[in-house]
Amino acid sequence: MQQTAQMKANKSLCVLAGGVGAARFIDGLSRVHNPSKITAVVNVGDDFEHLGLSISPDIDTLLYTLGGIVNPEQGWGRSNETTHALETVSALGADDWFLLGDKDIGLHLVRTSRIHSGATLTEVTAEIASRLEITTKILPATNDRLRTVVQTTEGDFDFQTYFVRRHHRDEVNGFLYCGAMNAHPSPGVTEAIENADALIIAPSNPFLSIAPILAVPRIAESVRAFAGPVVGVSPLIGKKAVKGPADQLLKRLSGAASSEACVECYKGILTHFILDTTDADEIPALTKIGLKVKATNTLMDSRKARENVARAALEIISSE
Amino acid sequence: MQQTAQMKANKSLCVLAGGVGAARFIDGLSRVHNPSKITAVVNVGDDFEHLGLSISPDIDTLLYTLGGIVNPEQGWGRSNETTHALETVSALGADDWFLLGDKDIGLHLVRTSRIHSGATLTEVTAEIASRLEITTKILPATNDRLRTVVQTTEGDFDFQTYFVRRHHRDEVNGFLYCGAMNAHPSPGVTEAIENADALIIAPSNPFLSIAPILAVPRIAESVRAFAGPVVGVSPLIGKKAVKGPADQLLKRLSGAASSEACVECYKGILTHFILDTTDADEIPALTKIGLKVKATNTLMDSRKARENVARAALEIISSE
Repeated sequence: MQQTAQMKANKSLCVLAGGVGAARFIDGLSRVHNPSKITAVVNVGDDFEHLGLSISPDIDTLLYTLGGIVNPEQGWGRSNETTHALETVSALGADDWFLLGDKDIGLHLVRTSRIHSGATLTEVTAEIASRLEITTKILPATNDRLRTVVQTTEGDFDFQTYFVRRHHRDEVNGFLYCGAMNAHPSPGVTEAIENADALIIAPSNPFLSIAPILAVPRIAESVRAFAGPVVGVSPLIGKKAVKGPADQLLKRLSGAASSEACVECYKGILTHFILDTTDADEIPALTKIGLKVKATNTLMDSRKARENVARAALEIISSE
Repeated sequence: MQQTAQMKANKSLCVLAGGVGAARFIDGLSRVHNPSKITAVVNVGDDFEHLGLSISPDIDTLLYTLGGIVNPEQGWGRSNETTHALETVSALGADDWFLLGDKDIGLHLVRTSRIHSGATLTEVTAEIASRLEITTKILPATNDRLRTVVQTTEGDFDFQTYFVRRHHRDEVNGFLYCGAMNAHPSPGVTEAIENADALIIAPSNPFLSIAPILAVPRIAESVRAFAGPVVGVSPLIGKKAVKGPADQLLKRLSGAASSEACVECYKGILTHFILDTTDADEIPALTKIGLKVKATNTLMDSRKARENVARAALEIISSE
């Protein structure tokens, strides 16, 4: 049954989200749906302390994207950015492998000092979001320490060492989501899931962005108990990741870089799946295992393209 | 007896130092004397933690000045500096009253992360000095926590709140050098004093720069036991401070902004005094209390002028 735009815009949506793809999708979603009805539950497995700063890369990418201040080409970091502080760090012989722009450091200083004075990541994220006039709700999956460790043939590496310092070149055997078993969902997370009309798993790396969120037992429990539609959006286009190692990881750990392998990562959770038109050959197989599938152009290379993917997700939910 | 330049350059000199005047003086001294024979023992009473950064303003001013990268007009901070991080801090509603340039933040990040990993201020200062190719030795007075608190008619303020945030406008009744009584001299400090051929008290604020150093009992003891010449360089020109509140503080707390009041702050320590030619009227009174006094142009507004003041200090020592 076709619903009106008004009705659709009042649905509460909860999106599990990681890096750039998720941020672009949520940006599109916040433009075609009432942003105050959208909650993003964001991966913190990439978070780390570097040069004394508390850095939350996935939260930052979302803040910068929704705040309209992201570097549009790279999809993370700030636009019109300088790196004078990092050049100094480098000249003084300290670690310069993690790119930190000057404006970006400004945000890290604010977060770090607030956390030093006892604020939670939830609180400081809300404060920054409010300053950036973002109405979409951004929640860290947890305020407890949760760190993704990547197990490779060259040894175990923390996420940023694997991803940035070693350019995700190592063969991966598995992941540890350290701290997840004892982590509690941050305030509002289970409520956002339980009160949602639909859940969406953003186009993110299943192992590096979504699995750390679902590794928190109470979050996995809420998601698995959720009775409404759960829409997955594929991070692949023509069986390839737009950026990052999702396709390589799927191939190595799930046997193939395919929508089916993606869906397998969310086994028992998804009811709907959005894939790229270039991957439409997989529709029959996915339909066979009980999913409602929709193909669309998922490359989010413009505002219009992001809105299109978001609309596809809304439409597949509303078409029930 | 006139000594040769060669002999003079081999004398070991130890300089007690605070802010901009001290840095300019030590820069001149390091140009006319063998810099590896000069040790600066630097005030840490102004040090503070701000936005999660460990900041040591007097050490930084010395590092930037001797490293040739200081902002030449203001005498502190870096030349060709930008403030993109601070503008972001400000836009996010956090404390922006303490000026932090982007390159400056780069140094603070290096120091903060080294201190987080267990390095002492002595160690990280030496590492940074080495990177900046500074051969003059720079030692923090102590690696223990020592903080100057300014007691004013408006309340007690930590140094940076008094000096920067409130623009040193409050009427001062006194000072607390918190932590000094239990602080130990940092490694090398007492040795530098005891093995020196001469001590110099740089043209610094007696209350805010030098007193916190001498508030460390073992440092005061070494200085008082020192048998060689101890040269004070006046921070006043025509009874006025070149910058900062030294003259106001001397007036309020010692009755007059004068060389005599300055010398009184170092009672029983000084044997020699360099003052500005505009204050030469005080020579007879100072001579009368047993000091050897020399008048010269002490405004260090050029490299030549700094070298001139440094030479005056060396000559008054060598003229024994």
